[in-house]
Amino acid sequence: MIIRPAAEADQAAIMEIVAPVLRAGETYAIDSDLSDAAMRDYWFLPAHEVFVAEDEGVVLGTYYLQANQRGGGKHVANCGYMVSPKAQGKGIAGRMCEHSQAIAKERGFRAMQFNHVVSKNTRAVALWQKLGFAIVGTLPLAFKHPVHGYVDSYVMFKPLV
Amino acid sequence: MIIRPAAEADQAAIMEIVAPVLRAGETYAIDSDLSDAAMRDYWFLPAHEVFVAEDEGVVLGTYYLQANQRGGGKHVANCGYMVSPKAQGKGIAGRMCEHSQAIAKERGFRAMQFNHVVSKNTRAVALWQKLGFAIVGTLPLAFKHPVHGYVDSYVMFKPLV
Repeated sequence: MIIRPAAEADQAAIMEIVAPVLRAGETYAIDSDLSDAAMRDYWFLPAHEVFVAEDEGVVLGTYYLQANQRGGGKHVANCGYMVSPKAQGKGIAGRMCEHSQAIAKERGFRAMQFNHVVSKNTRAVALWQKLGFAIVGTLPLAFKHPVHGYVDSYVMFKPLV
Repeated sequence: MIIRPAAEADQAAIMEIVAPVLRAGETYAIDSDLSDAAMRDYWFLPAHEVFVAEDEGVVLGTYYLQANQRGGGKHVANCGYMVSPKAQGKGIAGRMCEHSQAIAKERGFRAMQFNHVVSKNTRAVALWQKLGFAIVGTLPLAFKHPVHGYVDSYVMFKPLV
Protein backbone atom coordinates (compact mmCIF):
# COMPACT_ATOMS: atom_id res chain seq x y z
CA MET A 1 0.00 0.00 0.00
CA ILE A 2 1.20 3.48 -0.76
CA ILE A 3 0.00 6.82 0.51
CA ARG A 4 0.28 9.68 -1.96
CA PRO A 5 -1.23 13.08 -2.76
CA ALA A 6 -4.69 12.82 -4.34
CA ALA A 7 -4.86 13.47 -8.07
CA GLU A 8 -7.75 14.86 -10.05
CA ALA A 9 -8.45 11.34 -11.34
CA ASP A 10 -8.97 10.04 -7.78
CA GLN A 11 -11.94 12.26 -7.08
CA ALA A 12 -14.69 9.75 -7.84
CA ALA A 13 -13.00 6.99 -5.83
CA ILE A 14 -12.46 9.37 -2.92
CA MET A 15 -16.06 10.47 -2.90
CA GLU A 16 -17.21 6.83 -2.91
CA ILE A 17 -15.53 6.62 0.48
CA VAL A 18 -16.41 10.08 1.81
CA ALA A 19 -20.07 10.37 0.85
CA PRO A 20 -21.40 7.36 2.78
CA VAL A 21 -19.48 8.38 5.91
CA LEU A 22 -20.91 11.90 5.81
CA ARG A 23 -24.41 10.58 4.99
CA ALA A 24 -24.28 8.31 8.05
CA GLY A 25 -23.71 11.42 10.20
CA GLU A 26 -22.08 9.44 13.00
CA THR A 27 -18.51 10.73 13.04
CA TYR A 28 -18.10 14.10 11.30
CA ALA A 29 -19.74 17.33 12.51
CA ILE A 30 -21.01 18.15 9.06
CA ASP A 31 -24.48 18.03 7.55
CA SER A 32 -25.45 14.52 6.50
CA ASP A 33 -27.77 15.72 3.74
CA LEU A 34 -25.30 17.69 1.64
CA SER A 35 -25.41 17.32 -2.13
CA ASP A 36 -22.63 15.33 -3.77
CA ALA A 37 -21.08 18.61 -4.93
CA ALA A 38 -21.18 20.12 -1.43
CA MET A 39 -19.60 16.98 0.03
CA ARG A 40 -16.84 17.18 -2.55
CA ASP A 41 -16.33 20.86 -1.74
CA TYR A 42 -16.07 19.96 1.96
CA TRP A 43 -13.40 17.28 1.48
CA PHE A 44 -11.50 19.31 -1.14
CA LEU A 45 -11.66 22.67 0.64
CA PRO A 46 -8.98 24.97 -0.81
CA ALA A 47 -7.18 24.83 2.56
CA HIS A 48 -7.12 21.01 2.53
CA GLU A 49 -4.18 19.00 1.28
CA VAL A 50 -5.77 15.65 0.32
CA PHE A 51 -4.03 12.26 0.25
CA VAL A 52 -5.09 8.73 -0.67
CA ALA A 53 -4.07 5.28 0.51
CA GLU A 54 -3.87 3.05 -2.53
CA ASP A 55 -3.38 -0.67 -2.86
CA GLU A 56 -2.89 -2.25 -6.28
CA GLY A 57 -4.42 0.76 -7.95
CA VAL A 58 -7.49 0.85 -5.70
CA VAL A 59 -8.12 3.81 -3.38
CA LEU A 60 -8.87 2.36 0.06
CA GLY A 61 -8.60 5.46 2.22
CA THR A 62 -8.26 9.22 2.13
CA TYR A 63 -7.30 12.00 4.48
CA TYR A 64 -6.97 15.77 4.49
CA LEU A 65 -4.43 17.93 6.28
CA GLN A 66 -4.95 21.61 7.08
CA ALA A 67 -4.01 24.25 9.63
CA ASN A 68 -6.50 24.01 12.49
CA GLN A 69 -6.54 27.75 13.09
CA ARG A 70 -5.01 30.85 11.58
CA GLY A 71 -2.74 33.54 13.04
CA GLY A 72 -1.39 32.52 16.44
CA GLY A 73 -2.93 29.06 16.00
CA LYS A 74 -1.55 28.20 12.59
CA HIS A 75 1.26 25.95 13.85
CA VAL A 76 -1.29 23.28 14.85
CA ALA A 77 -2.44 20.88 12.13
CA ASN A 78 -5.81 19.21 11.78
CA CYS A 79 -6.75 16.11 9.78
CA GLY A 80 -9.75 13.99 8.86
CA TYR A 81 -9.38 10.35 7.83
CA MET A 82 -11.74 7.90 6.13
CA VAL A 83 -11.31 4.28 5.13
CA SER A 84 -13.39 2.29 2.66
CA PRO A 85 -15.80 -0.17 4.31
CA LYS A 86 -14.14 -2.84 2.12
CA ALA A 87 -10.82 -2.20 3.83
CA GLN A 88 -11.66 -1.80 7.52
CA GLY A 89 -9.44 -3.51 10.08
CA LYS A 90 -6.32 -3.51 7.94
CA GLY A 91 -4.57 -0.71 9.77
CA ILE A 92 -5.09 1.82 6.99
CA ALA A 93 -6.34 4.61 9.28
CA GLY A 94 -3.31 4.20 11.49
CA ARG A 95 -0.97 4.21 8.49
CA MET A 96 -2.63 7.39 7.18
CA CYS A 97 -2.41 9.06 10.59
CA GLU A 98 1.31 8.30 10.84
CA HIS A 99 1.80 9.57 7.28
CA SER A 100 -0.10 12.76 8.11
CA GLN A 101 2.09 13.41 11.13
CA ALA A 102 5.21 13.08 8.99
CA ILE A 103 3.79 15.43 6.37
CA ALA A 104 2.64 17.87 9.07
CA LYS A 105 6.18 18.00 10.47
CA GLU A 106 7.54 18.59 6.96
CA ARG A 107 5.10 21.49 6.61
CA GLY A 108 6.39 22.98 9.86
CA PHE A 109 3.43 22.17 12.09
CA ARG A 110 4.32 21.72 15.76
CA ALA A 111 1.27 19.76 16.88
CA MET A 112 -1.88 18.06 15.60
CA GLN A 113 -5.38 18.54 16.98
CA PHE A 114 -8.67 16.72 16.35
CA ASN A 115 -11.50 19.04 17.38
CA HIS A 116 -14.46 16.75 17.61
CA VAL A 117 -13.83 13.01 18.04
CA VAL A 118 -17.24 11.53 18.79
CA SER A 119 -16.96 9.48 22.00
CA LYS A 120 -19.07 6.67 20.48
CA ASN A 121 -16.41 6.27 17.80
CA THR A 122 -14.47 4.13 20.27
CA ARG A 123 -12.28 2.47 17.65
CA ALA A 124 -11.01 5.85 16.45
CA VAL A 125 -10.46 7.14 19.99
CA ALA A 126 -8.44 4.04 20.88
CA LEU A 127 -6.42 4.25 17.67
CA TRP A 128 -5.53 7.92 18.13
CA GLN A 129 -4.53 7.21 21.72
CA LYS A 130 -2.32 4.32 20.57
CA LEU A 131 -0.68 6.74 18.12
CA GLY A 132 0.16 9.21 20.87
CA PHE A 133 -2.83 11.54 20.92
CA ALA A 134 -4.24 12.51 24.31
CA ILE A 135 -7.80 13.47 25.13
CA VAL A 136 -7.19 17.06 26.25
CA GLY A 137 -10.83 18.05 26.46
CA THR A 138 -14.31 16.60 26.72
CA LEU A 139 -17.19 18.52 25.12
CA PRO A 140 -20.29 17.49 27.06
CA LEU A 141 -23.12 16.22 24.83
CA ALA A 142 -21.65 18.23 21.96
CA PHE A 143 -22.56 15.71 19.25
CA LYS A 144 -26.05 14.54 18.31
CA HIS A 145 -25.56 10.97 17.16
CA PRO A 146 -28.28 9.60 14.85
CA VAL A 147 -28.56 6.43 16.96
CA HIS A 148 -27.37 7.35 20.45
CA GLY A 149 -28.63 10.94 20.70
CA TYR A 150 -26.50 13.57 22.46
CA VAL A 151 -23.07 12.18 23.29
CA ASP A 152 -19.74 13.67 24.35
CA SER A 153 -17.01 14.56 21.90
CA TYR A 154 -13.32 14.67 22.64
CA VAL A 155 -10.64 17.16 21.71
CA MET A 156 -7.48 15.14 21.01
CA PHE A 157 -4.00 16.56 20.70
CA LYS A 158 -0.45 15.46 19.99
CA PRO A 159 2.68 17.60 20.04
CA LEU A 160 4.90 16.88 17.04
CA VAL A 161 8.07 18.57 18.32
CA MET B 1 -26.57 50.77 27.08
CA ILE B 2 -28.46 48.64 24.62
CA ILE B 3 -27.41 45.57 22.71
CA ARG B 4 -28.96 45.18 19.28
CA PRO B 5 -28.37 43.55 15.90
CA ALA B 6 -25.70 45.34 13.87
CA ALA B 7 -26.96 47.45 10.99
CA GLU B 8 -25.18 48.25 7.73
CA ALA B 9 -24.47 51.74 9.09
CA ASP B 10 -22.54 50.30 12.07
CA GLN B 11 -19.88 48.67 9.94
CA ALA B 12 -17.24 51.39 10.20
CA ALA B 13 -17.68 51.74 13.97
CA ILE B 14 -17.49 47.96 14.39
CA MET B 15 -14.32 47.70 12.35
CA GLU B 16 -12.72 50.48 14.45
CA ILE B 17 -13.04 48.03 17.34
CA VAL B 18 -12.28 44.79 15.49
CA ALA B 19 -9.28 45.77 13.38
CA PRO B 20 -6.91 46.81 16.22
CA VAL B 21 -7.74 43.65 18.18
CA LEU B 22 -6.98 41.41 15.19
CA ARG B 23 -3.84 43.44 14.35
CA ALA B 24 -2.54 42.93 17.89
CA GLY B 25 -2.78 39.15 17.32
CA GLU B 26 -3.00 38.41 21.05
CA THR B 27 -6.47 36.94 21.43
CA TYR B 28 -7.96 35.65 18.16
CA ALA B 29 -6.51 32.77 16.14
CA ILE B 30 -6.67 34.75 12.93
CA ASP B 31 -3.98 36.39 10.84
CA SER B 32 -2.92 39.75 12.23
CA ASP B 33 -1.93 41.13 8.84
CA LEU B 34 -5.26 40.81 7.01
CA SER B 35 -6.43 43.68 4.85
CA ASP B 36 -9.29 45.81 6.15
CA ALA B 37 -11.62 44.05 3.72
CA ALA B 38 -10.52 40.59 4.86
CA MET B 39 -10.98 41.58 8.50
CA ARG B 40 -14.47 42.79 7.71
CA ASP B 41 -15.21 39.56 5.87
CA TYR B 42 -14.02 37.62 8.92
CA TRP B 43 -16.25 39.46 11.40
CA PHE B 44 -19.23 39.55 9.03
CA LEU B 45 -18.96 35.95 7.79
CA PRO B 46 -22.28 34.91 6.23
CA ALA B 47 -22.74 32.43 9.10
CA HIS B 48 -22.23 35.15 11.74
CA GLU B 49 -25.09 37.01 13.37
CA VAL B 50 -23.46 40.27 14.50
CA PHE B 51 -24.59 42.47 17.40
CA VAL B 52 -23.42 45.78 18.85
CA ALA B 53 -23.42 47.26 22.35
CA GLU B 54 -24.35 50.92 22.00
CA ASP B 55 -24.36 53.72 24.54
CA GLU B 56 -25.79 57.13 23.62
CA GLY B 57 -25.41 56.35 19.93
CA VAL B 58 -21.79 55.19 20.23
CA VAL B 59 -20.84 51.58 19.44
CA LEU B 60 -18.70 50.37 22.36
CA GLY B 61 -18.66 46.64 21.69
CA THR B 62 -19.58 43.97 19.18
CA TYR B 63 -20.03 40.24 19.10
CA TYR B 64 -20.90 37.51 16.64
CA LEU B 65 -22.93 34.37 17.17
CA GLN B 66 -22.73 31.27 14.98
CA ALA B 67 -23.07 27.51 15.13
CA ASN B 68 -19.73 26.09 16.23
CA GLN B 69 -20.04 23.01 14.01
CA ARG B 70 -22.47 21.63 11.47
CA GLY B 71 -24.44 18.39 11.35
CA GLY B 72 -24.32 16.57 14.68
CA GLY B 73 -22.56 19.56 16.24
CA LYS B 74 -24.90 22.31 15.15
CA HIS B 75 -26.69 22.62 18.52
CA VAL B 76 -23.60 24.20 20.06
CA ALA B 77 -23.15 27.95 19.57
CA ASN B 78 -19.91 29.88 19.31
CA CYS B 79 -19.28 33.60 19.84
CA GLY B 80 -16.53 36.17 19.65
CA TYR B 81 -16.68 39.43 21.63
CA MET B 82 -14.73 42.67 21.39
CA VAL B 83 -14.95 45.89 23.41
CA SER B 84 -13.60 49.30 22.47
CA PRO B 85 -10.42 50.28 24.35
CA LYS B 86 -12.33 53.42 25.38
CA ALA B 87 -14.89 51.30 27.21
CA GLN B 88 -12.87 48.62 28.99
CA GLY B 89 -13.76 47.72 32.57
CA LYS B 90 -17.40 48.74 32.31
CA GLY B 91 -18.79 45.24 32.16
CA ILE B 92 -19.67 45.43 28.47
CA ALA B 93 -18.12 42.06 27.56
CA GLY B 94 -20.10 40.40 30.34
CA ARG B 95 -23.32 42.08 29.23
CA MET B 96 -22.71 40.98 25.65
CA CYS B 97 -21.96 37.41 26.74
CA GLU B 98 -25.21 37.23 28.73
CA HIS B 99 -27.08 38.70 25.76
CA SER B 100 -25.52 36.15 23.43
CA GLN B 101 -26.57 33.28 25.68
CA ALA B 102 -30.17 34.52 25.63
CA ILE B 103 -30.12 34.86 21.85
CA ALA B 104 -28.48 31.45 21.50
CA LYS B 105 -31.27 29.87 23.55
CA GLU B 106 -33.85 31.65 21.40
CA ARG B 107 -32.15 30.20 18.32
CA GLY B 108 -32.42 26.71 19.80
CA PHE B 109 -28.77 26.19 20.73
CA ARG B 110 -28.24 23.86 23.69
CA ALA B 111 -24.72 24.94 24.67
CA MET B 112 -22.02 27.48 23.91
CA GLN B 113 -18.37 26.74 23.22
CA PHE B 114 -15.28 28.93 22.91
CA ASN B 115 -12.65 26.99 20.98
CA HIS B 116 -9.49 28.92 21.66
CA VAL B 117 -9.36 31.18 24.71
CA VAL B 118 -5.73 32.22 25.01
CA SER B 119 -4.55 31.44 28.54
CA LYS B 120 -2.71 34.77 28.77
CA ASN B 121 -6.07 36.52 28.30
CA THR B 122 -6.67 36.06 32.01
CA ARG B 123 -9.36 38.70 32.26
CA ALA B 124 -11.46 36.95 29.62
CA VAL B 125 -10.90 33.52 31.18
CA ALA B 126 -12.01 34.81 34.60
CA LEU B 127 -15.04 36.57 33.12
CA TRP B 128 -16.24 33.50 31.21
CA GLN B 129 -15.79 31.39 34.33
CA LYS B 130 -17.82 33.90 36.36
CA LEU B 131 -20.54 33.62 33.72
CA GLY B 132 -20.72 29.85 34.05
CA PHE B 133 -18.29 28.61 31.44
CA ALA B 134 -15.94 25.80 32.41
CA ILE B 135 -12.49 25.07 31.03
CA VAL B 136 -13.20 21.67 29.48
CA GLY B 137 -9.92 21.37 27.65
CA THR B 138 -6.38 22.72 27.58
CA LEU B 139 -4.58 22.90 24.23
CA PRO B 140 -0.88 22.75 25.08
CA LEU B 141 1.13 25.60 23.52
CA ALA B 142 -1.53 25.94 20.84
CA PHE B 143 -1.28 29.72 20.52
CA LYS B 144 1.78 31.72 19.51
CA HIS B 145 1.45 34.98 21.41
CA PRO B 146 3.36 37.93 19.92
CA VAL B 147 4.84 38.78 23.33
CA HIS B 148 4.84 35.55 25.34
CA GLY B 149 5.54 33.02 22.59
CA TYR B 150 3.82 29.62 22.65
CA VAL B 151 1.14 29.54 25.35
CA ASP B 152 -1.77 27.24 26.17
CA SER B 153 -5.29 27.89 24.96
CA TYR B 154 -8.47 26.76 26.66
CA VAL B 155 -11.63 25.23 25.31
CA MET B 156 -14.50 26.69 27.38
CA PHE B 157 -18.04 25.36 27.43
CA LYS B 158 -21.40 26.12 29.01
CA PRO B 159 -24.60 24.08 28.66
CA LEU B 160 -27.60 26.35 28.02
CA VAL B 161 -30.32 23.81 28.79
